[in-house]
Amino acid sequence: MRQIRFRDPDGDVRYGELIDDGTIRADPIRTGRVTDAVETFEMESIEVLPPCDPSKIVCVGRNYADHAEEMGNEIPDRPLLFLKSPNAVASHGSTVELLTGIETLDHEAELGVVIAERCRHVSADDADGVIAGYTCVNDISNRDDQRRETNWVRGKSFDDSAPIGPVIAAPENVPDDASVRCRVNGELRQDGSRDQFIFSVPELIEEITAYMTLEAGDVISTGTPEGVGPLADGDTVEIEVEGVGTLENQVRIP
Amino acid sequence: MRQIRFRDPDGDVRYGELIDDGTIRADPIRTGRVTDAVETFEMESIEVLPPCDPSKIVCVGRNYADHAEEMGNEIPDRPLLFLKSPNAVASHGSTVELLTGIETLDHEAELGVVIAERCRHVSADDADGVIAGYTCVNDISNRDDQRRETNWVRGKSFDDSAPIGPVIAAPENVPDDASVRCRVNGELRQDGSRDQFIFSVPELIEEITAYMTLEAGDVISTGTPEGVGPLADGDTVEIEVEGVGTLENQVRIP
Repeated sequence: MRQIRFRDPDGDVRYGELIDDGTIRADPIRTGRVTDAVETFEMESIEVLPPCDPSKIVCVGRNYADHAEEMGNEIPDRPLLFLKSPNAVASHGSTVELLTGIETLDHEAELGVVIAERCRHVSADDADGVIAGYTCVNDISNRDDQRRETNWVRGKSFDDSAPIGPVIAAPENVPDDASVRCRVNGELRQDGSRDQFIFSVPELIEEITAYMTLEAGDVISTGTPEGVGPLADGDTVEIEVEGVGTLENQVRIP
Repeated sequence: MRQIRFRDPDGDVRYGELIDDGTIRADPIRTGRVTDAVETFEMESIEVLPPCDPSKIVCVGRNYADHAEEMGNEIPDRPLLFLKSPNAVASHGSTVELLTGIETLDHEAELGVVIAERCRHVSADDADGVIAGYTCVNDISNRDDQRRETNWVRGKSFDDSAPIGPVIAAPENVPDDASVRCRVNGELRQDGSRDQFIFSVPELIEEITAYMTLEAGDVISTGTPEGVGPLADGDTVEIEVEGVGTLENQVRIP
């Protein structure tokens, strides 16, 4: 089951299931018109929206040993956390408009965990119960400012710095060793796997909820494998998580 | 004009004006019952809510030279920014339930700027046009984790770490040299003034909106003067900003 949120040709915001043949079966309950009639849409006829509406994205740095090494960092003894605020969210298929005058704007392919319900103090053993599913995240990073600032706000939480989507895939769709990849203009740049995580998804949920409430629709972005690299104006960037699908965006740097 | 958001005795969320005699004149437009009848409430009969519903709080560190010194830090050459997510928000009059097992949980009295409208790329010259008004913020800080982490997420964005309120005061109510004070159990702990800011409110708005969109109701918390110190279970903490009023909370450390 892969859930999609979209704007239909009439302009209404809908939820539905993305079927393997690439069509969408709309959820009748959420349309405002409760009906037994099954409505289907072709992807070309709709606008994909972010699959959830996070009040915050809690991001994890250095969660793959090989990426920590390429950035010249030690393996952390607990998760390195940082925040992206809602202004960072961008949808699948959109053109992300990034900061001007920055030397290095990097892609970072990540597996995103979507939270199912408000929760606090969730133990790792109970964490599966609060996971709605998984999505793709591109943690776009402004290295110029990230290197200069104490907290990565200019470096990580600028507008359009967090494309997410295209769907929320149910946990059973995403294997424990799911691949996490980035392609730029069709060329493979990152190719990691969830089994390389330093901190597992349940460990991340336990650690984060020890400090803060997570809301339904909040996203935990679980870190990126080695191979991060720069984006340029006009690039097409794809983030693919096995079992979820591919999040694609065009890059515009004004 | 000081705007207050509150839950009336019937349980409805209302907006109104806090009058100098301490009563509230409810705004008829927002009640769902448009009427010319003026409804007033006594403070004791209502529950004060956070005066706005921020999608993010953008906080500023080391914006008073004397506080930077007491923390052993250099004067920054541009604003030190960090984020608090919505889970941090707490209302005036509430008991804030803080983290357990932390050695040092400090109060930080701050003037909060409430944003009036969605905005990006606002120059300092135009910044007054996007300010709804001012409020009080207590930037409660968990020093144990703040000292250990790269980004201050555990240190600054835990639940109830950002009491705000009790009102939004119109800009003309708050003088350029407005005092910013903290009292704990009635004892004065911090006593600063807006004219000690290293970066002015318009400069902060220009800098932040160069990177991100601010939404109506977002809050910029402008830093704290010297005198930060620890909170203990059972404390009463008051943040007073001249022209706004006093934000009061009880502290509970389980």
